[in-house]
Amino acid sequence: MVSAITERRRKEKDGNKRKRGGGVAEKPPPPPEEELYLCPRGGASSPRTPPPRRSPPRPRGWELRGGAGSMEGGGARNGSTTGAARTGGSGGDAAGGGGGGSAGNGKPLPPCCVKARAAAPESEAKCHATVVSGWFTEPRSRGGKTSKVQYYNNPMWPGEAHSLKVEKILYQGKSPYQEVLVFESSTYGKVLVLDGIVQLTDKDECAYQEMITHLPLCSIPSPKKVLVIGGGDGGVLREICRHGSVESIDICEIDQLVIDVCKDFFPDLSVGFKDPRVRLHVGDAVEFLRNAPEGTYDAIIVDSSDPIGPAQELVEKPFFDTIARALRPGGVLCNQAESMWLHTHLIQDMLSICRETFKGSVHYAWTSVPTYPSGVIGFLLCAKEGPPVNFLTPANPIEKLEGAMEAGRDIRFYNSEMHRAAFVLPTFARRELEAYCTTVEREQQEETTAEPLKMNIMPNSEILTAS
Amino acid sequence: MVSAITERRRKEKDGNKRKRGGGVAEKPPPPPEEELYLCPRGGASSPRTPPPRRSPPRPRGWELRGGAGSMEGGGARNGSTTGAARTGGSGGDAAGGGGGGSAGNGKPLPPCCVKARAAAPESEAKCHATVVSGWFTEPRSRGGKTSKVQYYNNPMWPGEAHSLKVEKILYQGKSPYQEVLVFESSTYGKVLVLDGIVQLTDKDECAYQEMITHLPLCSIPSPKKVLVIGGGDGGVLREICRHGSVESIDICEIDQLVIDVCKDFFPDLSVGFKDPRVRLHVGDAVEFLRNAPEGTYDAIIVDSSDPIGPAQELVEKPFFDTIARALRPGGVLCNQAESMWLHTHLIQDMLSICRETFKGSVHYAWTSVPTYPSGVIGFLLCAKEGPPVNFLTPANPIEKLEGAMEAGRDIRFYNSEMHRAAFVLPTFARRELEAYCTTVEREQQEETTAEPLKMNIMPNSEILTAS
Repeated sequence: MVSAITERRRKEKDGNKRKRGGGVAEKPPPPPEEELYLCPRGGASSPRTPPPRRSPPRPRGWELRGGAGSMEGGGARNGSTTGAARTGGSGGDAAGGGGGGSAGNGKPLPPCCVKARAAAPESEAKCHATVVSGWFTEPRSRGGKTSKVQYYNNPMWPGEAHSLKVEKILYQGKSPYQEVLVFESSTYGKVLVLDGIVQLTDKDECAYQEMITHLPLCSIPSPKKVLVIGGGDGGVLREICRHGSVESIDICEIDQLVIDVCKDFFPDLSVGFKDPRVRLHVGDAVEFLRNAPEGTYDAIIVDSSDPIGPAQELVEKPFFDTIARALRPGGVLCNQAESMWLHTHLIQDMLSICRETFKGSVHYAWTSVPTYPSGVIGFLLCAKEGPPVNFLTPANPIEKLEGAMEAGRDIRFYNSEMHRAAFVLPTFARRELEAYCTTVEREQQEETTAEPLKMNIMPNSEILTAS
Repeated sequence: MVSAITERRRKEKDGNKRKRGGGVAEKPPPPPEEELYLCPRGGASSPRTPPPRRSPPRPRGWELRGGAGSMEGGGARNGSTTGAARTGGSGGDAAGGGGGGSAGNGKPLPPCCVKARAAAPESEAKCHATVVSGWFTEPRSRGGKTSKVQYYNNPMWPGEAHSLKVEKILYQGKSPYQEVLVFESSTYGKVLVLDGIVQLTDKDECAYQEMITHLPLCSIPSPKKVLVIGGGDGGVLREICRHGSVESIDICEIDQLVIDVCKDFFPDLSVGFKDPRVRLHVGDAVEFLRNAPEGTYDAIIVDSSDPIGPAQELVEKPFFDTIARALRPGGVLCNQAESMWLHTHLIQDMLSICRETFKGSVHYAWTSVPTYPSGVIGFLLCAKEGPPVNFLTPANPIEKLEGAMEAGRDIRFYNSEMHRAAFVLPTFARRELEAYCTTVEREQQEETTAEPLKMNIMPNSEILTAS
């Protein structure tokens, strides 16, 4: 905390007379903008009531305001920005829809209703049911008597919300599995949103894609067969392709629409699909894994949904069992594993299950991703019993792989030092996760009174801290 | 990115029939809440137009919606939560203020005006000019023809916004320097806001306070004299006090109100003021430094405002010169230095100035703080010419300091491994900062045609990467 304004600065501030000194570049403030609070009168006038859900299905990230209007306008893939499905929006002046702070009937809105004031309707470019006043915003509260207006307060990150300024809606549609939205933001580039939650942005996708891929692949020498669960945007594929040792990459993504939309709007990600080593399987991941030959893969990357709600299955024991079955001895899994700031109980559970399932080393790592809740995302790294894997130090450093740093696109986030640092935990997280693992281990040992579990795992301190 | 929902899950999701499996704890979704969009009719009815400013003065963090109403209700220190100044707010039913989706005159609001819909007015506990619908929200856009409603789009983090759910306003007031707000959030504990920008929250203050303090103090053996610039909340003092070697701590904070409010509402932070080694100086930091005896301090910690706007002075060469003058040879500075995701140009400038000024090692470090923009905050670590300082490895590891881990309050974030990891940069940041430093160094060398600058600095690679 601060309050180190100097007296001179205070006077300058108060009088607004300050002249800037040199030395530090400063951007001028953006030009004044009108406040935009209303949807255009032509569109989005049929508020939708989302069906009750125990929790939203999508993972990390900023969510989507699910208020007035409908997202069902799309549905089919649309290959061009101009042709993308849109909900109404004629632009135009402030009349009718309540623009200009009027209630639409000529009478003024109550002066204390800040939000109801508007100088102009949404511009057509920004018109979408989930974008209000030109901003895409994470949902806030849930339910309500005014049944036409409902927002979610995502139980994965209650009490906080994030917003991104929207320049233009590029695509909206709906698959049998989820709603898909792509927009151009003002400062994070293009944004992919599934079922109301930001999946990635041009600006910070590098952190997620590179870390979830290279943490496992750089931890084992010469990975050859890799499987991706989810990852329909292609970003993980792009990163895997940097590894010349890899001979085949299976990807099992359930939603063809996600693949198609990303090929259209995120060429920097979907470039991953172009590699001849990639074999795409559009379908159910659990079924795919069940049919996969035992002991096939050197590495499996689960680029999955949040571990509550519809993707709950992906963090339960049976799923991890199918993963373990498909891995070769000493093979590795990297699984999206939420934020250490928000979800220690989930991480504890995943750690516990994975230690029991994989019987090799199990670690939690994390990285910074600005557009995910709390600004961080975690990963669970697990090795199957077999040749020991030390995740903490890259056995296969990317800097030494021929062409890896430049393949496709420059590496932007990952490097071997970031790899090591990713396993270093703040004291609170280390304490909570270590304490839990110790308790679970003791309970398990007490249950198996005959002899301790034969788990080829690393000691607790090694599981949760970097060397 | 994801889309790994299984076929079975999809059916469950669609039919909402899913039964949860075991193994992972899940919180039930919060009970439905009414949508709250209007300020209560009794209060906040005089929208305030903030004076034009080139940039807001406060640093990192979430900002405050500066819309309707005024923050000037307080002004004097108020020692109790119940007596804290409040703007209006009678609670009650939905009439008058436009509740229940009515425009206050009995006629319905236009259906497309999502924001204007409300089931109930603000509860009294949440009534504050900057809290709309029970949420404290970072400002969004700036200016506008509707002069009664203005928001800032902070040039330090344009195009994004953050919101926290507000349980209760605890205090609001105004000093000669800034507006002060304290509220209880629903998931981050108490929140301190200065001039509309979040300074700290109970939940994540540990990361900032511990890192800004121990990064410098653990980098030198036996620090004895320490100076804090800013830091009126007391958190940095609390952390310094863990160091038994420290004999005296000067703190120069300009705003007595911040100190008083934090003593009232943040006892976990202000406990730092109770240590007998602390000497408080309420006043101008630049003046204080000018009068400080030369070569006095082992360490100076600048817990300052954002380096644009009124606190610009605190990142300019003359200020750093006064810091360097007050440091003993080999003494260290730790300066708040923004986010590597958002402000590389500022960091480049600060690195350049500090390398020229201090002539010892200069490094950028960063840490995760969820409630600051982009979820991270950085620090500039500088050593004055003299006995060399290697910031990258703690010379004075906190784990070995008697009583340091438990003094006052448990350490929650910092540890020696986090210290080392803090200096590890993502590839993009390393590239941008290294490239810049190399360019600046070459230019400087070309300017001093006679001979290269005699700077006792570490080579570039060492400056920006961890060992």
